[in-house]
Amino acid sequence: MSSGKIIALSGGVGGAKLVLGLSHVLPDDRLMVVTNTGDDFDHFGLRICPDTDTVIYTLADLADKAKGWGRANESWTFMETTASLGGEDWFNLGDGDLALHVMRTQALAGGQSLSEVTASVSKAWKISVQIVPMCDQAVATIVNTETGPLAFQHYFVRDQCRPVATGFSFDGIDHAIANPIAVDAFGRAPDAIILTPSNPYVSIDPILKTPGMRTAIEASGAPVIAVSPIVGGAAIKGPAAKMMSELGVPATALEVARHYRGLVDAMVIDKVDGHLAPAIQQLGMDVRVVPTVMRNLDDKIALAKDVLALVKHLKSARRS
Amino acid sequence: MSSGKIIALSGGVGGAKLVLGLSHVLPDDRLMVVTNTGDDFDHFGLRICPDTDTVIYTLADLADKAKGWGRANESWTFMETTASLGGEDWFNLGDGDLALHVMRTQALAGGQSLSEVTASVSKAWKISVQIVPMCDQAVATIVNTETGPLAFQHYFVRDQCRPVATGFSFDGIDHAIANPIAVDAFGRAPDAIILTPSNPYVSIDPILKTPGMRTAIEASGAPVIAVSPIVGGAAIKGPAAKMMSELGVPATALEVARHYRGLVDAMVIDKVDGHLAPAIQQLGMDVRVVPTVMRNLDDKIALAKDVLALVKHLKSARRS
Repeated sequence: MSSGKIIALSGGVGGAKLVLGLSHVLPDDRLMVVTNTGDDFDHFGLRICPDTDTVIYTLADLADKAKGWGRANESWTFMETTASLGGEDWFNLGDGDLALHVMRTQALAGGQSLSEVTASVSKAWKISVQIVPMCDQAVATIVNTETGPLAFQHYFVRDQCRPVATGFSFDGIDHAIANPIAVDAFGRAPDAIILTPSNPYVSIDPILKTPGMRTAIEASGAPVIAVSPIVGGAAIKGPAAKMMSELGVPATALEVARHYRGLVDAMVIDKVDGHLAPAIQQLGMDVRVVPTVMRNLDDKIALAKDVLALVKHLKSARRS
Repeated sequence: MSSGKIIALSGGVGGAKLVLGLSHVLPDDRLMVVTNTGDDFDHFGLRICPDTDTVIYTLADLADKAKGWGRANESWTFMETTASLGGEDWFNLGDGDLALHVMRTQALAGGQSLSEVTASVSKAWKISVQIVPMCDQAVATIVNTETGPLAFQHYFVRDQCRPVATGFSFDGIDHAIANPIAVDAFGRAPDAIILTPSNPYVSIDPILKTPGMRTAIEASGAPVIAVSPIVGGAAIKGPAAKMMSELGVPATALEVARHYRGLVDAMVIDKVDGHLAPAIQQLGMDVRVVPTVMRNLDDKIALAKDVLALVKHLKSARRS
């Protein structure tokens, strides 16, 4: 296999799981993760980057695997005291998690870019996989709902995804610029680009819609592989399936493939969705049917190996 | 006794102890505390007000009495994580303490004054004694040392008061304005003004030197009583005695009296310093010799009662 990079586009939990699997299979310098920053927001005057942080905590082996967000062995004194002061308590910030947000907020205020801060954190916590925010400008995912637009974390955390989604928009994205580090990597003949099993609408789309990103992916010449976050009609975690139903499309891996049509060369879908393979192939995509539910590290590594086998297959098919 | 206010000027620990004693003896609406803000500084992008917070934590019964700063039952995950990120770790911030700094920083950024934030915190934590920062403008106490000027917390915490002090200055004080809430209280015939046993140079002086403060105190017509922080040639806590030696004056209650001469009507000194009473009287001050070391709540209440007895004595002496 070549030594080109594998570039994974990732949201939070689902994406981070596959990224962790890939990190166990690939040499560190062959893996780059481009993270969604559309979920980022200001809270308590601090800049919080949930998806990037989930990837950071996962790769640094600091993540709370049970909760799917935040740090393991966390304490909660800050939130308890904030509540006693009458402060907002709908978004839980652990005491250790807070250190990252305080450090980042201070660094950003001092003129560092989000990419620079992310690199500093990775260095401090000995993460050798390169983590690249999709852009250094502020982009805010808005969930349009039947009762009006909601900032993403208000929809996702405060309102527990209860409002009925009617669509999505990305405030500030017109003024964003695809992270030059990612664009440069796309231009250096990567081996593949992986759309991890994160939410297509609110995790992967913001990355793809960042001006310059999709063009750079298409110009890379590398195969683009998507792993379906929908398994057997449900999302493993998060509101993807609920959103699809509300948008009037079936919550299936086939619809995920349709959503990505024109960009994606191959889909990885779960065994329970094997019957959808022919329909996906009719969209002009290759399909790999494997176990995609990642319950433990072995599952993550197995899925990573399956994805990399598909990369190899796609590259050799192109050569022949 | 009249119903005029007792207005206490306070730094951190020593002052807060007497204030707590006074709060047990006086109705809440008769006690006002004017706090030193010269120790305030920005750290991790957060506004930290050590003396005001010590008074808050003490009156809210949240203080760590053993350490003399911060909160009891505190956790330290933020600092541990900050250290793992390579952040500064010379100033310890507990996780619960941090909630106050984050809330205050956000409120100040939103346009609230330090007085307003302090009032909000007091309300949330059911402190009915009015706590008034000396001013709403930023003033920074500088300790001039043989090796150059040091920001107060660098001198006090980072360098553990090791540098030899040559003098003090108060950056920004020329543009500060004595808190109008305090000035108004001084103008409403208070019963007395108490200089608590905080450090005269770096806790009480910044309050007195805030433009408009001393004039308002003098115009109040109320007796001014100082409790010596120096007992038997040593400070109960902090660098007051060390500073006096370095400034070339004996570390004695007599020198504290000399320092306050012209403003203070009466000194409260400890029993071990009874032999200094005649010399202090020769400065034209009244003297009360009582136990001043406050080891427990009973000591604080006893000293508060002694101070209030002196107030009564001074007021009746004036009437006669």
